Amino acid sequence: IQLSSLTPHQNILFAEFRGGEKLVETGKTARVIFVDISQSKFVQSTKLIQVFGFFVVIAMTAVNWELKNLMGIIVFFPAVSPAERIRFILGEEDDGPPPPQLFTELDELLSVDGQELEWKETSRWIKFEEKVEKGGERWSKPHVATLSLHSLMELKAFIEKGTVKLDMEGTTLPQLVGNQVESGQLKASLKEKVMYTLLRKHRHQTKKSNFRSLADIGKSVSSASRLFSNKPEKDQNKFMKKLPRDAEASNVLVGEVDFLEAPFVAFVRLQQAVMLGALTEVPVPTRFLFILLGPKGKAKSYREVGRAIATLMSDEVFHDIAYKAKDRQDLLAGIDEFLDEVIVLPPGEWDPDIRIEPPKSLPSSDKRSALIHGGGGGGHEVGEELQWTKKFCGGLVLDVKRKLPFFASDFVDALHIQSLSAILFIYLGTVTNAITFGGLLGDATENMQGVLESFLGTALAGALFCLLAGQPLTILSSTGPVLVFERLLFTFSRDNDFDYLEFRLWIGLWSGIFCLVLVATDASFLVQYFTRFTEEGFSALISFIFIYDAFKKMIKLAHHNPINTNFNSDLVTQYDCRCIPEPIWGKNAFNPVNITWASLTKHECEKFGGQLVGEVCEFVPDITLMSFILFFGTYTCSMGLKTFKTSRFFPTTVRKLISDFAIIFTILLFCGVDALVGVNTPKLIVPSEFKPTSPHRGWFIAPFGGNPWWVYLAAALPALLVTILIFMDQQITAVIINRKEHKLKKGAGYHLDLFWVAILMIVCSFMGLPWYVAATVISIAHIDSLKMETQTSAPGEQPKFLGVREQRVTGICVFLLTGLSVFMAPILKFIPMPVLYGVFLYMGVASLKGVQFMDRLQLLLMPAKHQPDLIYLRHVPQRRIHLFTFIQALCLALLWILKSTVAAIVFPVMILALVAVRKAMDYVFSQHDLGYLDDVIPEKDKKKKEDEKKKKNKKKGSIDSEMEFVSDNLLVRRNVLSWSSSIRSSPSTKQSVSVNVVAPSSHSLTTPTMTIFPL
Amino acid sequence: IQLSSLTPHQNILFAEFRGGEKLVETGKTARVIFVDISQSKFVQSTKLIQVFGFFVVIAMTAVNWELKNLMGIIVFFPAVSPAERIRFILGEEDDGPPPPQLFTELDELLSVDGQELEWKETSRWIKFEEKVEKGGERWSKPHVATLSLHSLMELKAFIEKGTVKLDMEGTTLPQLVGNQVESGQLKASLKEKVMYTLLRKHRHQTKKSNFRSLADIGKSVSSASRLFSNKPEKDQNKFMKKLPRDAEASNVLVGEVDFLEAPFVAFVRLQQAVMLGALTEVPVPTRFLFILLGPKGKAKSYREVGRAIATLMSDEVFHDIAYKAKDRQDLLAGIDEFLDEVIVLPPGEWDPDIRIEPPKSLPSSDKRSALIHGGGGGGHEVGEELQWTKKFCGGLVLDVKRKLPFFASDFVDALHIQSLSAILFIYLGTVTNAITFGGLLGDATENMQGVLESFLGTALAGALFCLLAGQPLTILSSTGPVLVFERLLFTFSRDNDFDYLEFRLWIGLWSGIFCLVLVATDASFLVQYFTRFTEEGFSALISFIFIYDAFKKMIKLAHHNPINTNFNSDLVTQYDCRCIPEPIWGKNAFNPVNITWASLTKHECEKFGGQLVGEVCEFVPDITLMSFILFFGTYTCSMGLKTFKTSRFFPTTVRKLISDFAIIFTILLFCGVDALVGVNTPKLIVPSEFKPTSPHRGWFIAPFGGNPWWVYLAAALPALLVTILIFMDQQITAVIINRKEHKLKKGAGYHLDLFWVAILMIVCSFMGLPWYVAATVISIAHIDSLKMETQTSAPGEQPKFLGVREQRVTGICVFLLTGLSVFMAPILKFIPMPVLYGVFLYMGVASLKGVQFMDRLQLLLMPAKHQPDLIYLRHVPQRRIHLFTFIQALCLALLWILKSTVAAIVFPVMILALVAVRKAMDYVFSQHDLGYLDDVIPEKDKKKKEDEKKKKNKKKGSIDSEMEFVSDNLLVRRNVLSWSSSIRSSPSTKQSVSVNVVAPSSHSLTTPTMTIFPL
Repeated sequence: IQLSSLTPHQNILFAEFRGGEKLVETGKTARVIFVDISQSKFVQSTKLIQVFGFFVVIAMTAVNWELKNLMGIIVFFPAVSPAERIRFILGEEDDGPPPPQLFTELDELLSVDGQELEWKETSRWIKFEEKVEKGGERWSKPHVATLSLHSLMELKAFIEKGTVKLDMEGTTLPQLVGNQVESGQLKASLKEKVMYTLLRKHRHQTKKSNFRSLADIGKSVSSASRLFSNKPEKDQNKFMKKLPRDAEASNVLVGEVDFLEAPFVAFVRLQQAVMLGALTEVPVPTRFLFILLGPKGKAKSYREVGRAIATLMSDEVFHDIAYKAKDRQDLLAGIDEFLDEVIVLPPGEWDPDIRIEPPKSLPSSDKRSALIHGGGGGGHEVGEELQWTKKFCGGLVLDVKRKLPFFASDFVDALHIQSLSAILFIYLGTVTNAITFGGLLGDATENMQGVLESFLGTALAGALFCLLAGQPLTILSSTGPVLVFERLLFTFSRDNDFDYLEFRLWIGLWSGIFCLVLVATDASFLVQYFTRFTEEGFSALISFIFIYDAFKKMIKLAHHNPINTNFNSDLVTQYDCRCIPEPIWGKNAFNPVNITWASLTKHECEKFGGQLVGEVCEFVPDITLMSFILFFGTYTCSMGLKTFKTSRFFPTTVRKLISDFAIIFTILLFCGVDALVGVNTPKLIVPSEFKPTSPHRGWFIAPFGGNPWWVYLAAALPALLVTILIFMDQQITAVIINRKEHKLKKGAGYHLDLFWVAILMIVCSFMGLPWYVAATVISIAHIDSLKMETQTSAPGEQPKFLGVREQRVTGICVFLLTGLSVFMAPILKFIPMPVLYGVFLYMGVASLKGVQFMDRLQLLLMPAKHQPDLIYLRHVPQRRIHLFTFIQALCLALLWILKSTVAAIVFPVMILALVAVRKAMDYVFSQHDLGYLDDVIPEKDKKKKEDEKKKKNKKKGSIDSEMEFVSDNLLVRRNVLSWSSSIRSSPSTKQSVSVNVVAPSSHSLTTPTMTIFPL
Repeated sequence: IQLSSLTPHQNILFAEFRGGEKLVETGKTARVIFVDISQSKFVQSTKLIQVFGFFVVIAMTAVNWELKNLMGIIVFFPAVSPAERIRFILGEEDDGPPPPQLFTELDELLSVDGQELEWKETSRWIKFEEKVEKGGERWSKPHVATLSLHSLMELKAFIEKGTVKLDMEGTTLPQLVGNQVESGQLKASLKEKVMYTLLRKHRHQTKKSNFRSLADIGKSVSSASRLFSNKPEKDQNKFMKKLPRDAEASNVLVGEVDFLEAPFVAFVRLQQAVMLGALTEVPVPTRFLFILLGPKGKAKSYREVGRAIATLMSDEVFHDIAYKAKDRQDLLAGIDEFLDEVIVLPPGEWDPDIRIEPPKSLPSSDKRSALIHGGGGGGHEVGEELQWTKKFCGGLVLDVKRKLPFFASDFVDALHIQSLSAILFIYLGTVTNAITFGGLLGDATENMQGVLESFLGTALAGALFCLLAGQPLTILSSTGPVLVFERLLFTFSRDNDFDYLEFRLWIGLWSGIFCLVLVATDASFLVQYFTRFTEEGFSALISFIFIYDAFKKMIKLAHHNPINTNFNSDLVTQYDCRCIPEPIWGKNAFNPVNITWASLTKHECEKFGGQLVGEVCEFVPDITLMSFILFFGTYTCSMGLKTFKTSRFFPTTVRKLISDFAIIFTILLFCGVDALVGVNTPKLIVPSEFKPTSPHRGWFIAPFGGNPWWVYLAAALPALLVTILIFMDQQITAVIINRKEHKLKKGAGYHLDLFWVAILMIVCSFMGLPWYVAATVISIAHIDSLKMETQTSAPGEQPKFLGVREQRVTGICVFLLTGLSVFMAPILKFIPMPVLYGVFLYMGVASLKGVQFMDRLQLLLMPAKHQPDLIYLRHVPQRRIHLFTFIQALCLALLWILKSTVAAIVFPVMILALVAVRKAMDYVFSQHDLGYLDDVIPEKDKKKKEDEKKKKNKKKGSIDSEMEFVSDNLLVRRNVLSWSSSIRSSPSTKQSVSVNVVAPSSHSLTTPTMTIFPL
């Protein structure tokens, strides 16, 4: 406000800024008009000035004027957009802690039941608006606060005109009101009445309405604690949880009174948040006060203005501005910025009465302020886990270094009820898997490896892996390709009179060594070339196999228990099944007594070579149908319970619990149903004795003696195949587990994982146990069951996916339980197999969720207009998408066929072929299209990124447009913002000249800020 | 513009208006300022003027001025709000046809693949915006066009500044461009370049990109047809269907060019819509043109302005204004009105990138314009069907008169594929019902009335009723109460040795006569006292009974076919079941050979007094389980298929078909499943011979001879009970069927319905057939299967429920088929009963949908914050709602208990008790609460009404507030609208005085309109 050193002779003027300094960055130029107030006219000498820090240097060359008459200077700063101004406001004290969260409450002056007037809480905000339902006497659902343009403009006018007190110290209400009287905005005679009104009681929307008055307002902080002591109520506690500890309140009071002719408006920021008695619903100290009292008949309009300021206060950017504002202009700039960003819905296309539910994805919290701060988004970093170190065991060492610091937390982090559910769920999956593969292995190897070996191996390998590996969320299991290999190997050994187990031991040894070599050479870095195409192809295929297997098992079960379709209950007397001896009597000399034959069971009869005769011999009633009921029931029920989380019923915690334990509840339920109906469905039978399945083997396989020496060397050849098989199976699952979208925080450990797989392979080979690698579907299920979400903070905000409960405990427990299952046989035998098959089906289907390939498959059946708004649909032509899907589906079909034949052994190698196909697609698709369709960045992040980009572009575009697009004729009226700023006067500078300022330059579209320096 | 007759001596001035006349209503007063332009100052004589039609009378008493110097008059009309102005614009020529629907297309000037610039279609509107996905090369889903405030303000500035040509006749583009050159807005040198740009080719978003140029623009209408002839393409036809025949197009062309320094803006309305070649995507004549060409670098901003004008053109109100606007000011008023009504979303609470799906309920089409027209909403008319005529048979006569004109259309209207589905669906329900009730009746009356009587009676009564009754959508059936009555009657007759059928005949006769008396006295008018409480209580109860019965039947079936839970397939050799004679040999002399006993079937064995011995005698395998699979399968599948309509897959027509035929498909599917599995489930057996079930009766019951004479009179007593029973059962269902929400257009016929029920009762009594009344659940299912919806007109618009296909054909066909079923036994026997029970379950559950009582029951389980946004939840305290629900549930529970006992016969009377309970609730609940909770007006309408009310209030409030709330200091800047209007000048009147107009009165908040009359 002062020109500190005038050096007219040098034609240079230094002007010191006050108040406005933060608006101009050093080095920028501004325009200046000198005003000769005595003559009530401008000195028409608009010049460029240079700004150095707080000083303005005005080059006055070629200026012909008299200094004596100079009464003021109007400086036009270079078109500061609201965003720029706000950047100055917000960018100022970045070192301090961020302003606390605000709770905003709107109280209206109402007379309840014809009683005296009182302040009644009608809405509240943390992020979204919650309204008190007038008749409903309850809180509405949180919703997006839709405002009218009118109320926002009115609010702006009020802020422009009314009292704005920032950093009031221990203010008393009388002081505030007195202030208005002084400034002539309020007649002195009305002071008492206004005071009386402001001190009316407050009634909050709680169960017991609590009456308190505003009388305590302005009392010092010290007394606040005393006032507070008699306030806490139980029903507030629940809402208090939604607020952080340091939250502060802003109170908006609006109402109509009969004695006022002009509105009484005040916006107050207290220097220190003060607990103002019962002013606020919850015991949160008040920082902001907005008071609007006006003449009768406009209550509705006042309420809308109150809603507008409350919405602004709950807006992230304005909230910061409100905390940091230095003066009224800053607040107005905040409103302008808000108006600039506002989204307008056409009245004919939206019913304003529809309460808009909070959106699933909000504009990222820092996006707008980041823009304001001028910050850019971070790039996409390359996963350091997969970088090629070019050192011996470099990757392994890095893995250990990365994971070691987390080792303790890997146990602490598991302390959550969710872990229990995950353990039970995954345990059942693992046990079922162990039994299934054990059974199949026993079948394939004539019980050289059987169910017990499968249990023991799973428990041993899994527990050790989870304890020590790089990614303990991975669940090890036997897999299809390994099974096929074992089958081929056994047949080969038998046909060539090799000792199967010894031969296998050597293959395992070689494979383990090969794998260790791969570990030592950081070969896992190759994994990064698996794109979404490969990953999703693989995981979709495995999921399909799960689903297919579940049905196959059910059909097999049905074949074992055929239904008698010819049964007629009336003919039950005619049906029987008798065991009779083989008709050729002569051959078998000993002929037991007839009665003995008849008393034989079906099994015995077959054993003794008898013949079953009768209509019902081959049929087993009820079991098949009951199994199907259990199978589909389990699947449907677990699916339903899993989605129960999003239902409207019951409180959130209950729903979360039900959803987390969906599978366990379902299994228990259908075990109950099975027990209730009492049909003898096939049950889960686990081995209960601890000894090798085959009597021809022990627990240790001797490496020498069984086969000729050259076999030990020749084993390296099949070992190569096994190595590829293991490497691919292991690493592709690891990639899927470590996907970005899972938001894992403790990092991956591809090399470490492979190291332990190799070690376990060698151990298992020596013990004659099956080999284990990462199992895709169960691992995904494991991840899914451990997902964490935010406890919603503000009402209406969607819970955010935070990450996965990364720890080693669930995995270890699962495998310990698997090991102990041998002793739990009496309990486990109540679980019907069809129920477990239903769980398998569920796992298969659930793991297909979120797979883009499936989404794209569904698109094939959807007419374009019904397709969801997927990011790639916005950018890639549909026929290209369909072509991509078709190629992927074709690859999967080929792999499926391969997998179904003996060629299954080369299956993992074929995954490599997928990579090649993907590479070839570079020639068919543009990189642009592939960027959208095939990328490891998952859908959500992508969209967000694009949003950001767009926003940035848009912002840039709009600034550009504001800067560049000029038509002098359209100057003032172009923009609501420029308008409202341009006609505003500065009431604090008494000597100011009232001018209808027209922004003089091409920058007129944005807010020109104006400071008047009286000399 | 002329003062037509100046009579200064009388101090009275008549001024004739031109142009501005529509702004002022006759009889209003305005303010006037006389301007002495020669002296460049105002003659400070503001006076009141009175407006008579087109003339203004200015009372000039006490005015001291000279007429010679008077150069002009500025008339300030009394604060015309945009809404008022628009009311004038729109209210003008209400006699003409409404303006045609508009198709708006936004073309941007883009260079495709580095080629020459061309106009590329990027968005289109009918009601909602559809965008061309940049990369996707396809149309986006229709969505609400979210605009930025900035673009709207810019558009307004452009309209203020640019060329506005309304009712251009055969305009050529050069003329338009020349106009701009003339007015100095465009340099003459640029004319050619602008022309060249405007005539670039147009590329539309169709499968084959079609290139046409704008060159034909301005050619006369006659040549348009020729141009059009080579244009129609197949792929447009689909979109053309969405447009009405008389639709016109508005073309928005925006783009950036390098030769312009100021934007070239033109808004053109052609006097006649002209087919401008390939300007428009579809062959629709163009009426409006908006052209915006501007300097480089602002393409994004131009696009947003283009989107803004396009959105405005698709806005219902602005669309009308655009058609009727007389000048630029009208258009600006339209924009103002739009801005006034706009809905603002805070930037922090909504991501602008989310495309907002069109809302389910749009603001009613006429709401805004109705407000503008100042029209009020129609009241709630009392159903004339239920008014008490106080004449003999007055109601009946009115019913006949009302329904007769529709009789022919009742047959024509049935011509739709939907009818077929309805017939099949309802037929199956009816047949199942007939069999069930027939079986029960046969059981209750020792086959005096059996299944065949049930079929015959249903067919006869139903067909006749549907042919002649007042409400042919009602489906007649036996009902529970009637069944209970018959059972009691039969027992009573047997115990007292009465002739049952004759006694029943007399009761029927009396009842019929009583009913006819009720018809003659218009007693049905009492029906209007059934409120939603009673209705919903009744229909919910009936639905529960349906559901309960479905399960009961399944459980009964399971009891008939017990499962052998001890079955062990290994012991199958031990199981048998033999028929042996009773052990007491001595008693029965004749002892057939042992073998003969063994060969007997179960049934025969029991018949001959044999004994069944064996473990498996009592068990029936598979049937129960298969039945449950079919039962739940049918229910789940039909539910799923029914909701398939809202799925994303397949085109709308296919989904509609699947949904309409959901039940039929499901039944066929599960008949197939049943046949495939081959288990001998119980099947639907219809009687195949046409003769009375009991041999002891004929087809005609003689009225005399069976009972003593006094019985004929005494029969009147039970007849009274039957009458109440019939009346209640019939009428409450009729009320439910005739509900407002079904939007029936042909009116109800309560008296006529009851008349036919009475007649049929008498007929059935004579023929010994069961009595029939309206069946709630099946009738609701009938209505549901005949619901019509609009074929969506604008993309994105929700189909509206139009009403029900009201006709007599479906009903008649259903009952004819029922009658013919006797001959269809060979086909029908493939339908398993569990499938039909599943359909029953579906019917019961489906008829509970939309019942407010059920919604309220669900609320009990929902935490407040998860409850849906129901209208009554906004207005009635939750505990009151729960209390209401509790009372209703209690009533239903009592009725249920009643219904389950012998007291069921008084059940219909108890419905009357419901009415009484409802009446008593008046003392417990406030009328306000009851108004929301208990009202025959269904949910949707209520909400709409409230919206309207609210809107009106709001409107009123905001006008009030604008009118009453004044603070002189805030004058100009209060409102974006007043601002933008107040600073606008009228560029068309060259002699206008440039004044910074400040609205002089308290009306300043709204747009003051100003007309300058140069003398």
